[in-house]
Amino acid sequence: MGIRNIKLTIQYDGINYHGWQFQPDKRTIEGELTRAICELIGRKIHVCGASRTDAGVSALGQAALIQIDSPIPTKNLARAITDRLPIDITVTEAVEVPFGLDIIGGAKRKLYRYTIYTALARPVLNRHCWHIPDKLNVESMKKAAALLVGTKDFKSFAAADDKRQETVRTLYRVDISSDNDYIFVDVEGNSFLYNMVRNIVGTLVESGVGRMKPEKITEILEAKDRRAAGPIAPPEGLCLIWIKYD
Amino acid sequence: MGIRNIKLTIQYDGINYHGWQFQPDKRTIEGELTRAICELIGRKIHVCGASRTDAGVSALGQAALIQIDSPIPTKNLARAITDRLPIDITVTEAVEVPFGLDIIGGAKRKLYRYTIYTALARPVLNRHCWHIPDKLNVESMKKAAALLVGTKDFKSFAAADDKRQETVRTLYRVDISSDNDYIFVDVEGNSFLYNMVRNIVGTLVESGVGRMKPEKITEILEAKDRRAAGPIAPPEGLCLIWIKYD
Repeated sequence: MGIRNIKLTIQYDGINYHGWQFQPDKRTIEGELTRAICELIGRKIHVCGASRTDAGVSALGQAALIQIDSPIPTKNLARAITDRLPIDITVTEAVEVPFGLDIIGGAKRKLYRYTIYTALARPVLNRHCWHIPDKLNVESMKKAAALLVGTKDFKSFAAADDKRQETVRTLYRVDISSDNDYIFVDVEGNSFLYNMVRNIVGTLVESGVGRMKPEKITEILEAKDRRAAGPIAPPEGLCLIWIKYD
Repeated sequence: MGIRNIKLTIQYDGINYHGWQFQPDKRTIEGELTRAICELIGRKIHVCGASRTDAGVSALGQAALIQIDSPIPTKNLARAITDRLPIDITVTEAVEVPFGLDIIGGAKRKLYRYTIYTALARPVLNRHCWHIPDKLNVESMKKAAALLVGTKDFKSFAAADDKRQETVRTLYRVDISSDNDYIFVDVEGNSFLYNMVRNIVGTLVESGVGRMKPEKITEILEAKDRRAAGPIAPPEGLCLIWIKYD
């Protein structure tokens, strides 16, 4: 069997990890995956992730690419790797893909979900949310969210130290929904700047608590300055739901 | 202000604790609550819980009784105690009740929810469930569950070392519902034998995977023998939802 290009789909609880990216002496998702695959196939390997999620951010549909020449059939790979991973990381799928696939640049759409919990009491059974013990105005948040949809310059929502020149991105939808004490913010886009979803959510919450008029979003976008937007939302509430390729 | 009898409502993630009941040198819910209240009011106190949940079992509506003569107003108690508790325990309510209330024997109805997760991949974002990566026959489970409703001798579903003479209990409902990969078993009753809900769930799952006909429940009840029922379900999936008093 020759060398194969394999795309993995990965789920993880990011709360227990220092983010996706490998760091010596720190628990990271990339670090755990690399170790597990090396153990399985008996040699060193490089795991290339699609999205470098931050410390505390979780995923239900992260993607990564590996090249292997192991005799293990592709259909058995997901289970075999998962067997060597900690309980809070799992590989749900392994599929062979053409060698030309660009796992980072080739991603056409991504969906992130951000979860807010608004009950007075702490959410003891769910750490994957931002606890805001307050009544949020969902209609106000929806109005603000609608102004973010489209192809726009999102420089005001990028981390101040994100040095990328090109800050125009397309958001296909920013949907706000609620279920009892939970509020969900679903952000689907073609690509994201560093901290962009968390900065968007922090700003939408400013509008939900009444500190900001929804219409101010237009002004924030025009400012092209991180200081114009609201504070960053904490990482625990964020989850990368899926990534789509052509 | 004289001495007051206070009923607390408590939520906790049981996965990180050795159960409700105080044990020296072990983290327990009763132990943490006792410590927090002692810190708050500056003297020793006894916390009397309504339900001694097992290690790993969670609660959104546990009840407990304390007697205090502290000047802290009752309406501030829940927050003041919670401030001194670990992040995974919270007191959601404190109300003054008559001194005659029997927190254990006076409970008229309790609702437990058991959560099963049936996707192939491990549930990385939710530890509060029993992972059964299999298609369960929900109709079969519903049929079996219906045979448990009513006033019956549940000796076959009690822990073998539960030495109580009286094993007749009333179940008002045993509802099975599903949502995507999740199956929920809601058991409402007047009182429960030790391990009763987990033994019921373990037996219903036998019927869900096709190892047992739903009708066998009648036979199991008649046997009055723990060995007649199915295996015990793991504690992580169980949550005490509420307790009602007159």
